[in-house]
Order: sequence, then structure tokens, then C-alpha cells
Amino acid sequence: MSDKPRPPLPGEICPAPIADHEHIVLGHGSGGKLTQELIEKVFLPRFDNPYLARLDDQAVLEMNGLRLAFTTDSFVVTPIFFPGGDIGRLAINGTINDLAMCGAVPRYIAAAFILEEGLATEALTRVVESMRAVADEAGVMLVTGDTKVVNRGKGDQIFITTTGLGVIERPVQISANRARPGDQILLSGTIGDHGMAVMSKRENLEFEGPIESDCAALDSLVAAMLEASENIHCLRDPTRGGVATVLNEIAARSEVGMELDERLIPVRETVKGACEILGLDPLYVANEGKLVAMVAPEAAEAVLKRMREHPLGAEACRMGEVVAAHPRRVLMKTPIGGTRILDVMLGEPLPRIC
Amino acid sequence: MSDKPRPPLPGEICPAPIADHEHIVLGHGSGGKLTQELIEKVFLPRFDNPYLARLDDQAVLEMNGLRLAFTTDSFVVTPIFFPGGDIGRLAINGTINDLAMCGAVPRYIAAAFILEEGLATEALTRVVESMRAVADEAGVMLVTGDTKVVNRGKGDQIFITTTGLGVIERPVQISANRARPGDQILLSGTIGDHGMAVMSKRENLEFEGPIESDCAALDSLVAAMLEASENIHCLRDPTRGGVATVLNEIAARSEVGMELDERLIPVRETVKGACEILGLDPLYVANEGKLVAMVAPEAAEAVLKRMREHPLGAEACRMGEVVAAHPRRVLMKTPIGGTRILDVMLGEPLPRIC
Repeated sequence: MSDKPRPPLPGEICPAPIADHEHIVLGHGSGGKLTQELIEKVFLPRFDNPYLARLDDQAVLEMNGLRLAFTTDSFVVTPIFFPGGDIGRLAINGTINDLAMCGAVPRYIAAAFILEEGLATEALTRVVESMRAVADEAGVMLVTGDTKVVNRGKGDQIFITTTGLGVIERPVQISANRARPGDQILLSGTIGDHGMAVMSKRENLEFEGPIESDCAALDSLVAAMLEASENIHCLRDPTRGGVATVLNEIAARSEVGMELDERLIPVRETVKGACEILGLDPLYVANEGKLVAMVAPEAAEAVLKRMREHPLGAEACRMGEVVAAHPRRVLMKTPIGGTRILDVMLGEPLPRIC
Repeated sequence: MSDKPRPPLPGEICPAPIADHEHIVLGHGSGGKLTQELIEKVFLPRFDNPYLARLDDQAVLEMNGLRLAFTTDSFVVTPIFFPGGDIGRLAINGTINDLAMCGAVPRYIAAAFILEEGLATEALTRVVESMRAVADEAGVMLVTGDTKVVNRGKGDQIFITTTGLGVIERPVQISANRARPGDQILLSGTIGDHGMAVMSKRENLEFEGPIESDCAALDSLVAAMLEASENIHCLRDPTRGGVATVLNEIAARSEVGMELDERLIPVRETVKGACEILGLDPLYVANEGKLVAMVAPEAAEAVLKRMREHPLGAEACRMGEVVAAHPRRVLMKTPIGGTRILDVMLGEPLPRIC
């Protein structure tokens, strides 16, 4: 009998660490523990530099007195059209958001398309029109691009890779390693909407009510928050892996603990119901128009007030606090008075969500 | 009977223009006429801005007195390992080259991976190691990235999208619209090596001798050329669609004609033989370590001399001249004294070559 683990079945969440993996599994794209392991074991040792080592969603490059933010993401969501958005809207907004999460003003976007032979030209056109509309709203320009076509059955309709370039105009240092005990943890609104919207469409599920993706560009919300105070230490958009995964990443990078109160976290009733049916925890479900912020205690109230005045932050709330105790652990008080550990997601409950 | 054209068969080169296409065909990714039509009919009308309208392989952005070059490309080559390179080496070199082709010094690269479930982790590791080696040679840093995983059968092992950022340090204006009558057309070496190397591996063909990809980073060659003279008007790396397609693009954008002499164009004997067997013209076959340059007549000799002193330009030659006559047409004198029109490639003789 071989000592080697058997290759995982398609879609299987594989509990073994990457060191034991001879093959890539869906969980390596989850944004959770397996993705972290892939980054730490395959990418980081080979691209060892201070920019990548920050493990933020963007690199900050100092050039000629200019502080540039640079970020890239591939989008492989299926289906490509879903309630509240499509892959084009997702790609542009996602890249704008990754720039905004270090306080940058988004300026330029590059877009590379991998099309599957047989794709309807009309579908491509609709996606491109979405991209244009979203880019215009945010005042970013798509300045360069590329198109490749792969044989039928070697792709899946459309994959889009967007790369963004933005300028950090304020003297802020926003990074996952800057959370400090006492920081207030703010959340800009309800969680789980995007993931459940894509799932409902993909699996053709009928829930109690319609669920729409929250897909939105957060740059204007971040601009409003920074006007209220520059004392914002971390910003993250909780996409793949959800709020729980992002908070764990910040806790690990900043060597701090976190204490949350589950009762404070807003979840739409329809999303809550859909999650219960599917056995998912909304804290691990992807969002595409939400952010979490670690804000210095003296600035938190002003920042929260400004968030609530913004259309994308109307339901913003304080969800907890950064603590010195239990570094790298995120604890959550449950509604019935218990405490649970919110761990990083291991595998991939919702593959290809973005 | 329907007026609509039947959907193309897989791999079929479809002569109808995009306006008649309801579906994407492989030829839309060829870099030839169908790619141009897709760009002109789907992308340009929706992303109407002066950067994209230049139709160069990179955007030049002026920021804070800095002239930045910004370029993106997806790589979908199959097989991912081929004689002389692999998809990782191709991705980094391709992006370095697109930056170099406007005279920029490559600085930073972002890389986004789309992995197919089931990919051998060892193959990914080898590709990443290639990327690192090539980046180090050229002094560029991979500063940010992304990884997605798609289900088995929805991708093809590895797709890589690399986006580059470089700085144009010299006061040069190098663009496809700057060719002028009298410019000398220089070519840095033999043509067709990359395309035939990939084909031979993919189709398991045995030719008279081994054919290796010419995959290489051209930034140091361009730096040497610009040291010889800044009077270089256009630079292009003839990848998809080959030398013929690139020259046609420059002729169209600059509203000039070109006259080439086939006898001056170096092609390796093995490549020539392989092309003859497959019925391909090396002028339409992809290169990944070659460039064509339109150089002011008074500078041509000095630039060519410097090219020949560089290891990547040892076989550099003058292949023809830009003329005022027959604008937008590229004519070539054949060895037997005739003249043929070199048109843009229509479809896709060699799909997924980069």
C-alpha cells in the first residue's frame, strides 16, 4: 500500500496540508487555509521580497515621490451572470476595492480576457458594457488589455484578470499588520450576500426571497472614512473566505487577538435562511461590496458616523474590538452567552465565487 | 433556411468578419485580423480613451512627472513545458518585452494564476521557479499576485496573467504610429523559432533537428539600441501573428507602406523545413525573443551594429524600408524577383502559442 494520499475527488475539501498534496484541489483557491499554505510553500519562498511578504491585497510602490498601489486578481466566477452583477462588474469593482483597501484612489485598470471558443459574442459584449459602466462610475480608465481564446472545454466561457493602479494621496499607512489592541472593528453592512446570490443562481435554488450580490466599488466609502479620520489602521474587503478569514489574517499579521459579538453582525434574513439550509456560516461566505476596518478607538465613532451617511455603509456597525490577549485568535461571543473560536476556513465550501 | 452562418467547428479558421459571428472562434485569439475586429467592434467602442486607442502593447501613463508603461497579457500556451521554455518563462519575458517595446525599463510585475484542479503541484513549482529565475535576470520584482482554482475540465493546467509596470527614463516616443518613410526596418534575428518549437512538442513531431523556443527578455537589447541612438520610432516583438502581422499593424497605424526583401530575413533551416512540412509561412509564426524596429535612416547603421554586439541580436539584419508609396501595404520582394503582398493573418494557424 502506498503512503501517498489518494488524489482528492473533484470538489472534495481535503483536510491534508499542502505539503502532502501532489495535486491542486479546489480548496487551494478558497482564500482559506489551503490558499495560505500554497502561498507560503510555493510562492513566497520563490518570490522573496518585502512587497509580497506584506501579504496585503496590493503592493505599495514608492516611485518618484509617488505612492502607487498595484493589485491583480483573476475572476473565474460561475455563472458569469448572477443576481446583482456579472463577472465584468465583479472584476472592475474587485480591483477598485483592492486599491481602495490601502487608501489609494483608483486610476487605471488593465484587463486580460481568456475566452472559451464558442462563447456567445453577445455575452462578451454585455460583460464589457458592465465593465465600462462600473469604471466610469468610479472614474477609472481601462487603458490596456489582452484577449486570448482557448479551445472548447479548456476554459469556462470567460475568465477576466484585472490589474489596478492607484495613487495613495494621503499620508496613511493602512496594512494588515497595523491592528493595535483597543482598535474598534467596524463592518460596513450585511454579510454573505454575494456568495449566496451566486450559489442560488448556480444551483438554481429558491429561497424565501430574492438574494442579490452586494457587488459594489468601495472607493468612495473609503474616501469618506479617511475624511472623517486618517487614524484607520487596516482595511479589508472580505471576499473569498468571508469576514472570519479576513479577521484571522489581520490577527495573525498584527499579532493581536480579536473579540467579536455575534449579535452585532448584520445578516439579511434571506441570507441567514439560505445559509441554514445549506449548512453554511455567513461569516465564511464571500462579500463583494463590504469592508472591515480596524480604527483607532478615539476615531471610531466619527468614522462609523461617516460610514452610515454613505449609501454603501448605511448598515455599518461596530462588530468588536482588537485585544492584546490571545494573539492570533478571533473569539466571538454567541447570542446565548457562549464564546466560540472563529478559525480560518480550511477548504472551499463555495468554489468559484469570484 | 437561416441566413445566419453556421457556428464554426472547433479549430476552424472562419473567414466571416466578427460582425457575422455570434460566437467566439479560436481565430479571435490569433493576433490577426479576427483579433483586430474583436478589439475594434467589442472593446474599443466601449473603452473609448486615448490610451487604448493607441493600440500599442502597453499604455504610457504620465504621473507626477514620471512616464510609466503599463501592460497586461494572459498566457495560455499548450503544452506548458516546451523546448526552450515553459509558460512561466514565457509570461515574465513576454511582459518584460511589452514594457521594453516602448523604451521602458521593466520594474514590477503582478502575476495571477488560474489553476485547474488536479494540476501537479510539482509542475506549478517548476513554473514558479522559472518565473523567479527570469525576473531576477531582468531585475524585475514580482510584487503582488493572485491564485484561483477552477474545476477539472474548466481550465487547462495553468493560465498565467502577468501585468508589468516600467519607467520610460529617456525622452523617447516609441509607438506604432511613428514609422516614417525612409525608416529602416531592422529585425533582431531568426524568425519562427518559438511557434515551431511549441508545435513540434504539442503534436509530437520529429523534424530534421531540434527546434527551441527563442523565449528571452529583450530589455537589455533595447537598452543597448537606445544607447546607440534615441532615433528609434517603433519597436514591436512579433509574437502571435508573427513578423508579417506586426509590420501590417505598424503600416496601418503610421499610414505608411513597407518594402521588404525576403532574402534578407533569417530563418533557421530546421524551422524552414518544419514550416514547409506543415504548410506554414515563418513570417506568420510567433517569436518570443525577437523584435522589429523602425529606425531613422541616419541612425540605422549604428543601431544595427549595437544589436549585433548583443547576444540576443547577433543575427540582426536590415529587412527592408518604410516607404510613402502604397500606404498600409507591406510588399515583399521574393528570391525569384517577384513581389508579394504580406497581408495580416486572418485566422489562427497555430492556436495557443503564448
